Amino acid sequence: MTAAILSIGTEITRGEIVNTNATWLADRLTQVGMEVAEVVSVDDDCPRIIETLRRLAATHDVIVSTGGLGPTTDDLTALCAARAAQVSLVRDPASVEEIRDRFRIFRRRMGPSNIKQADIPSGAVVMTNAVGTAPGFWMCLGRAKVFFFPGVPREMVHLWEKHAQAVIGSYAKEPTAQIRLHTFGEGESAVAERLADVETLFSGVIVGYRASFPVIEVKLLARGAGAQALVEAAADFVRGRLGSLIYGQGEQSFVSVVAQAVRNSGLRLALAESCTGGLMAQLLTSEPASDYLAGGLVTYANDAKVKLLGVPESLLEEHGAVSEPVAKAMAIGAARAMGAALAVATTGIAGPTGGTEDKPVGLVYYAVAYPGGVQVRHQVFFGDRSRVQRIAAFSALQLLRTCIASPTGC
Amino acid sequence: MTAAILSIGTEITRGEIVNTNATWLADRLTQVGMEVAEVVSVDDDCPRIIETLRRLAATHDVIVSTGGLGPTTDDLTALCAARAAQVSLVRDPASVEEIRDRFRIFRRRMGPSNIKQADIPSGAVVMTNAVGTAPGFWMCLGRAKVFFFPGVPREMVHLWEKHAQAVIGSYAKEPTAQIRLHTFGEGESAVAERLADVETLFSGVIVGYRASFPVIEVKLLARGAGAQALVEAAADFVRGRLGSLIYGQGEQSFVSVVAQAVRNSGLRLALAESCTGGLMAQLLTSEPASDYLAGGLVTYANDAKVKLLGVPESLLEEHGAVSEPVAKAMAIGAARAMGAALAVATTGIAGPTGGTEDKPVGLVYYAVAYPGGVQVRHQVFFGDRSRVQRIAAFSALQLLRTCIASPTGC
Repeated sequence: MTAAILSIGTEITRGEIVNTNATWLADRLTQVGMEVAEVVSVDDDCPRIIETLRRLAATHDVIVSTGGLGPTTDDLTALCAARAAQVSLVRDPASVEEIRDRFRIFRRRMGPSNIKQADIPSGAVVMTNAVGTAPGFWMCLGRAKVFFFPGVPREMVHLWEKHAQAVIGSYAKEPTAQIRLHTFGEGESAVAERLADVETLFSGVIVGYRASFPVIEVKLLARGAGAQALVEAAADFVRGRLGSLIYGQGEQSFVSVVAQAVRNSGLRLALAESCTGGLMAQLLTSEPASDYLAGGLVTYANDAKVKLLGVPESLLEEHGAVSEPVAKAMAIGAARAMGAALAVATTGIAGPTGGTEDKPVGLVYYAVAYPGGVQVRHQVFFGDRSRVQRIAAFSALQLLRTCIASPTGC
Repeated sequence: MTAAILSIGTEITRGEIVNTNATWLADRLTQVGMEVAEVVSVDDDCPRIIETLRRLAATHDVIVSTGGLGPTTDDLTALCAARAAQVSLVRDPASVEEIRDRFRIFRRRMGPSNIKQADIPSGAVVMTNAVGTAPGFWMCLGRAKVFFFPGVPREMVHLWEKHAQAVIGSYAKEPTAQIRLHTFGEGESAVAERLADVETLFSGVIVGYRASFPVIEVKLLARGAGAQALVEAAADFVRGRLGSLIYGQGEQSFVSVVAQAVRNSGLRLALAESCTGGLMAQLLTSEPASDYLAGGLVTYANDAKVKLLGVPESLLEEHGAVSEPVAKAMAIGAARAMGAALAVATTGIAGPTGGTEDKPVGLVYYAVAYPGGVQVRHQVFFGDRSRVQRIAAFSALQLLRTCIASPTGC
């Protein structure tokens, strides 16, 4: 049983967007036990889309296609699918109603081009889309079942989870087991080197890595009878090897793990951000946080550090804003200003300018104030501005987690 | 003249890595005037690689392949290229010496598997690799010239720039012209409907859209003689049609346009964020901002609004945190707290919980304090938490831009 992925859109063949949809689908298809043999992207060209659909449908058992289901004139996928199967396009009345409802809920005007999204190849099965206007559909073509998803990532994810995953998974012959462990603190090659012997020690386990800066996911996969026991044994081994580098597993995100640690402490949290510029606050508030987050101060300018956090001007003059004493004073000041028992502060040089010989671009001090005291660390992070900001925010929140876990000294 | 990109490697078809190489190559090929029609990834399977090479070489003029040139047993690309062309593999003596030298420079031990990297299809032209051990090569196959690069990104970039770019660029016949206009304020289908007649009015212009929530990019592309004048005329028309929806063009980002407007005003800016949770600060500080940004307050909890922004408790009690008076008081309080003449504030219900009949999830008040007064707007935004936060932050910053542009009343 082999599968192919087809991404449709000139924005991909022109290199305007990175095709993360294909990577996501390849990962999911592999997880449900399909062997993905080919990943193809074609431009918005009807003959090429038709030819590619027919070629893939002659070779593979499952095809998953994304893109080209939108309302605009360059959205040709449904038309091409119908032509590839030599059937007509038919307007699906239920989908027309769905689209109408969706526009009513969104309180937006529905144009005639939106109705076009209800046209699907005759005989295809509609996959309703609760998070967007374009329904998906699936149909038989050649020897393959072909699934058509919109290219908007969250709509694709929704249709995969709601409609396609179970259908496709039922074709895969062998059971598959996978465990995902999430690490923070080392790069992909360093993690991979530490685990170089796992595939030898646990024969049948495939070790994969996925980097989503600055975290690295370790994936352990096995197929066939006994797959679950095998990956569990390998996961125990990896946990022992990587120790505190691992912060979570499965669906746990770094932010959710930090939030849970703060919630468990029963303490309220304040943030003081200089070089991270609000990123820590943005990360934490990407999930509801009002039960533990008092607030945050983005004290980008020195006078804001003085006025809002009460950092003494003398400290700034003597040590500079990027220094251990100022990081400490920021954390203590944030806790006091917001009446919180926990506080995290960052101050550093995110770049691209502002570095000196003593204090290079990438130097970041981060501090945590907690009932047991104040802890400060500093590191020189490498990479561009956004990478320095991101790894600094993660490092500071990681220190917070450590301090909460061992309040007598982190 | 069409081109195809072929990426070889099971790590791609299993979804373990994102294929950024293909995106980079597609962008470069488009820049030198090639039309990339197809981007294909296949697993490390010799028959499939051979079949794909032959198929692409029968259809396209240029093929660029990456991956599978390494020293391990699953690196099969050179062998498959030779079989596809029905020639033998020959060891290139100059490449053997290059590889030896490189190992000497890197002070690493050269294994027998590394010598294999000097084996190339008979008749192929070697592309020396100054930054890695595997040379690249190019050869004729079918109607195509096929270029083989290693999969390591910096080696691929090196071989493209040193060897392939000029050769491939010389094939492209037609000049290409493109203008990109950036819009905020309406969805993709609404923008597309407004521009439905552009391709008819300006024959030869291709209109494309790229949504990067919440902004929509309009791309105008033409090829051949007169392409530049044609897209410029179309762009003028689109500017007239879309008016203030357009905030920038080309490489301009929404953040850079807002930052420039603040810089031009000569005033300093303060932020007060409730429902956007630091996102406005994070957006603005994604680029250096210390010359105009005083700081930001993430006043997620009510007591932080009182303590840090001086919002009267009576206002919160009477109107609730999500209200016009509180949004106004937050903006005025932020300006005062940070000694800034400009301030932006947001307060709303990002969801997924916390909505009521009167104040549904998605309701956001945003306010701008500026020397001409205070302006407040409110809207109900649709979508999940991250979308509500994102469009609220953009809307508030857009209002700031408008207030700066017409200080007598925005």
